[in-house]
Amino acid sequence: MRIAVDCMGGDHGPSVTLPACQAFLTAHPDVELVLVGTADALAPAAAWPRCTLVTASEVVAMDDPVEVALRRKRDSSMRVAITQVKPDATGLTRADACVSAGNTGALMAVARYILKTFDGIDRPAIAAMLPNSTGGFTKVLDLGANVDCSAEHLLQFAIMGSALVAALDGKNAPTVGLLNIGEEDIKGSEVIKRAGELLRQAGAAGLINFQGNVEGNDIFKGTTDLVVCDGFVGNVALKTAEGLASMISGFIKAEFTRNAWTRIVALVALPVLNRFKGRVDYRRYGGATLLGLRGLVFKAHGSSDAFAFQNALQRAYDAARNRMLDQVRDRVVSALQAMPAAPDTARQAA
Amino acid sequence: MRIAVDCMGGDHGPSVTLPACQAFLTAHPDVELVLVGTADALAPAAAWPRCTLVTASEVVAMDDPVEVALRRKRDSSMRVAITQVKPDATGLTRADACVSAGNTGALMAVARYILKTFDGIDRPAIAAMLPNSTGGFTKVLDLGANVDCSAEHLLQFAIMGSALVAALDGKNAPTVGLLNIGEEDIKGSEVIKRAGELLRQAGAAGLINFQGNVEGNDIFKGTTDLVVCDGFVGNVALKTAEGLASMISGFIKAEFTRNAWTRIVALVALPVLNRFKGRVDYRRYGGATLLGLRGLVFKAHGSSDAFAFQNALQRAYDAARNRMLDQVRDRVVSALQAMPAAPDTARQAA
Repeated sequence: MRIAVDCMGGDHGPSVTLPACQAFLTAHPDVELVLVGTADALAPAAAWPRCTLVTASEVVAMDDPVEVALRRKRDSSMRVAITQVKPDATGLTRADACVSAGNTGALMAVARYILKTFDGIDRPAIAAMLPNSTGGFTKVLDLGANVDCSAEHLLQFAIMGSALVAALDGKNAPTVGLLNIGEEDIKGSEVIKRAGELLRQAGAAGLINFQGNVEGNDIFKGTTDLVVCDGFVGNVALKTAEGLASMISGFIKAEFTRNAWTRIVALVALPVLNRFKGRVDYRRYGGATLLGLRGLVFKAHGSSDAFAFQNALQRAYDAARNRMLDQVRDRVVSALQAMPAAPDTARQAA
Repeated sequence: MRIAVDCMGGDHGPSVTLPACQAFLTAHPDVELVLVGTADALAPAAAWPRCTLVTASEVVAMDDPVEVALRRKRDSSMRVAITQVKPDATGLTRADACVSAGNTGALMAVARYILKTFDGIDRPAIAAMLPNSTGGFTKVLDLGANVDCSAEHLLQFAIMGSALVAALDGKNAPTVGLLNIGEEDIKGSEVIKRAGELLRQAGAAGLINFQGNVEGNDIFKGTTDLVVCDGFVGNVALKTAEGLASMISGFIKAEFTRNAWTRIVALVALPVLNRFKGRVDYRRYGGATLLGLRGLVFKAHGSSDAFAFQNALQRAYDAARNRMLDQVRDRVVSALQAMPAAPDTARQAA
C-alpha cells in the first residue's frame, strides 16, 4: 500500500503535512509514502523509513487561478503527486492513492487533466462526509466542483456516490436522496425535477437505492446515506453549516468565559463539552474525495492541522484498501447501458 | 395600529395563536387585533378588548396544495386575514399588517393573488433574519418562494431587502452580499455572474450598497446586513442550518445526560447553557416577511408555539410602525428607472 502526498499543499504546508505523515507511518507499518515537495521542504524526511522522496520544483499557491496550476506550474508538487496514481503503459501506478490539502479548484482541474474521468462520467465530483444525528455520516456530493449541473450529471453523482458509500461503509445498496426544497416530486427547479425522474428510473432499474427528495435538514438527520446536489447548492449548504457551527462554538465559549463563576462552571463541564466537541470536530472528517477520476485523489481541508491531515491520509488508506476505485468503475460500467448520456452543459467551477 | 391574524394557521392553530394574541394585546395597549378564524375557534376571544372577530368558514391545511388554497377555499381564514390589508377604493385598509403561521406556499400564492406586487417587482420574496456572530441579525432572501430566478429577480430582491433592513434596523444604506461559492466575480453559475454585474451597476448608481459576493459562512459571520440568493439555494441553506442546530442541540443534551455525574454537571451548567440556547433560539426570529406585495404579510413558523407566534406579531408591529411598506415602495419606485425589466422566467415554487 503506497500513498502519494503533496507535502506543499494547504495553508501550513510541510509544517503540518510532514508531522502528519510521520505519525501515519508509525500507526501503519504496512504503508509506504511517496512524499512530493521541494528538495528543501523534504529534507527532514530524508532518513524516514518506508518513504520515497520525489522533488518538485514548483508549488501551487492557495490563491493561484486554475489556469496557473494547470498550464504554468507543470512541475508543481500537486501535479507530481497526482501523477503517482496515473497508470503507466502496463497499467501499474507508483501509488494507490494521492492526498493534497491544496487549492480545491486547482486540484480538481489538474487531477482531471492528468487522470481523466471514467467513460460515462462527464465531470468529476467532490464528496464529503458530514456527521449526522444517528451517530453515522451522511455523504454529500457535489460540493463545489460543478455549477450549472444537468439532470444527467446528478444521476452520475448518485451512481458514483453509491459506490463511495459501498466502499467506505460496506453497504451494498446505500440509500440515496436528491436535495430539494420539499419532499413532493413536483418541487424544485426544472433541472431538479428532471433529475428526480432519472433517479427514479435508475432506482427502478436497480442501479441505485433512490428514496426520493430530501431537504437540507435531512443531511444532519441522516435520512439517507447519500445526498446528491449540484456543486453550487452543495457548496453553499456546506459553508452555511460551517458558519453556523463556528458561530455556535463562539457563543458557547463566550457564555462560559463571561465571568469568574461561568469559568469555574466551564472547568467542571469541560470533559462533557470536549466529548461534544469531538463529535462535531470537522478535522475528523474534513477530507473530501474526488470521484469519477481514473485514480484515487483525496483533498484535505486547506486549514488542516496535523490531526486533520492524518485523517485525510487514513481516508485514502481505507479507500485504497477497500478497492474503492474498482467499485466506482464497476458501478459506472454496469450503469452505463441504462444511463442516458449527459449533454455536456455543466461547467467546472472557475 | 391594527394587525390581522390568521388564527387557524400553523401546526397548532388557535391553541397557540389565541394565547399569543392575548399576551400581545396586554403588552401593547396601542394595538388592535383583527382575529380571523372559524366561529367556534374564535369564541374564547369574544369578550377581549381591542379585538374585532371576523369569521371565515374554511381553513387552509398545512398540506393543502397551492391550487386548493387559491381556487377552492375562497373563504379561508388565511385569505380573509390577507384581505384585511388590501386597500379599498379609497386606499384605506382594515389592518396595517397581517400574520399567519399557515402553509408557506399557500400564503405566498394567496397574498400575491389578493394584494398584487409593486410595479417593477415580478415575484414576491420571503425574507428571514438569522442570528450572526456580531450579536446582530443577517437578513436573507429569498427563502423558498422562487426557484429558477433570473439575475433581474436577484436585483429586485436586493432592492426590496435593502428597504427591509432600513425599516427594521434604521440603516439607510445596508450592506448587500450576493450568495456565491467564492468571493471572486468569476465564480458561480451564469445567472449568478450576471446578477453580480447587475448588482454592481445598481451599487454604482447608488441604489444599493453592494459589497460583492459572500459565501455560506458569511450569513452567520454577519459579513453583510443582507444576503441575496435564489429561493432554492436559500431554502436549502436555511434548512441545512436548522438541521445542524437541531443535531448540535441533540448532541449537547446526549453528552449532559450520559450518566449521573454529567447530569450533575448539567445542573451546574444549566444557566450558562440556557443563555446560550436563548441566543440561538429560532423562536425569537423564526418569522419571515413576504416582500414585494402591496401589503404587509408576515409568516410565523408552522411549528410556532405562543412565544414564537408573539414574536411574529411583534415583527409585524415593528414593520407597520416603521412604515416598511412605504419604504419598500419608495425604493422600488426610485430604482425602477435604473432597473432593467426582468424576463418573467422565475417560477413560483409549486
